[in-house]
Amino acid sequence: MSHDLFIRNVRPMARSAADVHVQAGRIAAIGPDLPVPAGVEVLDGAGAILTPGLVEAHTHLDKSLWGMGWRPHDAGPRLIDKIDNERRLKKLINIDPARQSARQVVQSSRMGSTAIRSHVDVDTEIGLWGMEGVLKTRADYADIMDIDIVAFPQSGLMIRPGTAELLDQAMKMGADVVGGLDPCAIDRDPKGQLDVVFGLAERYGKPVDIHLHEGGTMGAFSMELIIERTRALGMAGKVTVSHAFCLGDPDPALVDPLIAALAELDIAIMTTGPASRPAPPVAKLAAAGVRLCSGSDGIRDTWGPYGNADMLERAMFLGLRNNFRKDEEVELAFDVVTHGGARVMDLAGYGLDIGCVADLLIVPGAAITEAVVSRPANRIVIKRGRVVARDGAVLREAP
Amino acid sequence: MSHDLFIRNVRPMARSAADVHVQAGRIAAIGPDLPVPAGVEVLDGAGAILTPGLVEAHTHLDKSLWGMGWRPHDAGPRLIDKIDNERRLKKLINIDPARQSARQVVQSSRMGSTAIRSHVDVDTEIGLWGMEGVLKTRADYADIMDIDIVAFPQSGLMIRPGTAELLDQAMKMGADVVGGLDPCAIDRDPKGQLDVVFGLAERYGKPVDIHLHEGGTMGAFSMELIIERTRALGMAGKVTVSHAFCLGDPDPALVDPLIAALAELDIAIMTTGPASRPAPPVAKLAAAGVRLCSGSDGIRDTWGPYGNADMLERAMFLGLRNNFRKDEEVELAFDVVTHGGARVMDLAGYGLDIGCVADLLIVPGAAITEAVVSRPANRIVIKRGRVVARDGAVLREAP
Repeated sequence: MSHDLFIRNVRPMARSAADVHVQAGRIAAIGPDLPVPAGVEVLDGAGAILTPGLVEAHTHLDKSLWGMGWRPHDAGPRLIDKIDNERRLKKLINIDPARQSARQVVQSSRMGSTAIRSHVDVDTEIGLWGMEGVLKTRADYADIMDIDIVAFPQSGLMIRPGTAELLDQAMKMGADVVGGLDPCAIDRDPKGQLDVVFGLAERYGKPVDIHLHEGGTMGAFSMELIIERTRALGMAGKVTVSHAFCLGDPDPALVDPLIAALAELDIAIMTTGPASRPAPPVAKLAAAGVRLCSGSDGIRDTWGPYGNADMLERAMFLGLRNNFRKDEEVELAFDVVTHGGARVMDLAGYGLDIGCVADLLIVPGAAITEAVVSRPANRIVIKRGRVVARDGAVLREAP
Repeated sequence: MSHDLFIRNVRPMARSAADVHVQAGRIAAIGPDLPVPAGVEVLDGAGAILTPGLVEAHTHLDKSLWGMGWRPHDAGPRLIDKIDNERRLKKLINIDPARQSARQVVQSSRMGSTAIRSHVDVDTEIGLWGMEGVLKTRADYADIMDIDIVAFPQSGLMIRPGTAELLDQAMKMGADVVGGLDPCAIDRDPKGQLDVVFGLAERYGKPVDIHLHEGGTMGAFSMELIIERTRALGMAGKVTVSHAFCLGDPDPALVDPLIAALAELDIAIMTTGPASRPAPPVAKLAAAGVRLCSGSDGIRDTWGPYGNADMLERAMFLGLRNNFRKDEEVELAFDVVTHGGARVMDLAGYGLDIGCVADLLIVPGAAITEAVVSRPANRIVIKRGRVVARDGAVLREAP
């Protein structure tokens, strides 16, 4: 469904006041003092900032515990502890991917996101339950959210025979991206895993998005293997490395050659701006021409209690992590959670230009940076020209 | 002023439901199904969590830009750039310490804090303007906030002759704590500065709270000098080191002896949980028996745009920085922003026991951890038995 709407008195990207005329879900006109067309719903922007919709470019819709009541966290300290704990709990407490993804999508819409890339677990215990659930939510909530699905071997690929075949099925079912995970640390066979992942990407003509938590020289080695395959297969512009903690290593001799290769092959980096881990340096990567996006990662799941799906807050986390204090620096963080995500997800018609899809956020503030640090609750969210969330109230309720 | 109040149906520290009878500003009774006394205001807690008031144990009330309109940030990258930029702007844009401290105190009260330790700039350009302003706010807003004042040589002590005399005057005016700042990196004369700071503390019988941003071996050296003076002067339990980034150094050979000495001499550590700097390891320090507190540090000041004076959010930052995921870990972060701050500020009668001062926070949540990660806006804040903030509305308005 596409909608008509006239938005009065907003400040595109915090600049001077303008009106916006949306026709059939797209921006037909944007500028000061536009004539109000007859018979069209008029929305008063009250001088607030207008931006494109926020982009949640890395999350796990299939396994949030949102709305399931409080559950104390007790997984062990290692990555594998959390993976095993989660797989065990999924059926035990019925973390239903359809229900839970719908809940998170509604919360994301409330906070201003209009597009989501979700990794979805595929493994030999729960099979394609996650895929089925998120595909259902993608169809059911298409009026409020665009959802990109990454088929994600969370529990390992080479260490779990049968997973490659399930990933293949997931691609046939409608996954948009082939996922991967720590080819050394978790899968113990980096060549094996990456050949399967890139093989699937080649077969289905789809991009790749790999979780890489590995730090230091091990992470750099895995990233080199990803870079080599991206080059060999002509997949420039089609690969994302998520987390990429190794880029936060203090040794420039380790990091700089990686950054040069990422820029050369247009490999994108996803960072959540983690406070407790070495993290990719956002300003340095952007200056080198590397595409960047961000995401909430898991929200209130068995991994940890944090998260509210607010990508404006995520921009603040990026700013805090990268010691961004100047407005232009915080605006870079905001660019990462908007245009950056759109570039990584290859969202057609994203932006505030004439002809762009009217996926919009209206949020109070004197400057983009003020909106980021204040994170006001009184936001208006517009999807294809229709108001889908306003001051916390949402068009579509969660199950 | 002290007040009577009956609070019905709250869950002390998220445990089972209880009522609280406050008489003359103190907890007279707390337990299940208390009889409602005649003629006393009754507050329905609706099953929310009851905790002691949050403690903002490190901020700068005198120089927030809160409510002064948005101001783009443009200070240079070094610490000294920010110090010089701020001193230059104070008179230029009239960052009036009385007005600005009042604004921040009201915001702090709104978010649930009932006690604040504020460092207040003392230097040879603005003199005691900051002291006068915050002392006025302390008197004017005594009904909603207890304020502890640290006389703080922000611009350096040894590099600015005349500052020591101003600090002496500040102590006479009513400062509660002697402050200091980076004795090597800023003041270039660690022995000189620390002898002045500890000398003033001895003369006035007051505690010390020193900003120590210095990292690595330089920070460890300064901390050793602080430790030596604490021991020599018998000031165990009277010294706080704020920030203490050097404790986040990855080398245990550097850090562990410092931690042992901090525990031995009961020297407290203040950490904001900074995402972009090495930070004191909260769990390790707590396990060693070191007292910890936290604070917002500067809120929307010339140093940077962040901050909202929410110590519940600060607990979340501590959790994120320290990779706290289990409930018991996040509860430690919450302890730091409540009892931890109270221990550092030596607040008499702090807590939920009978006889304690009724400085309280009522906040929805199934668990302390849920309150920390959700940071609900619908809080009730009570100061000496009187409701001073509720759902964002405050008893005392800001100027």
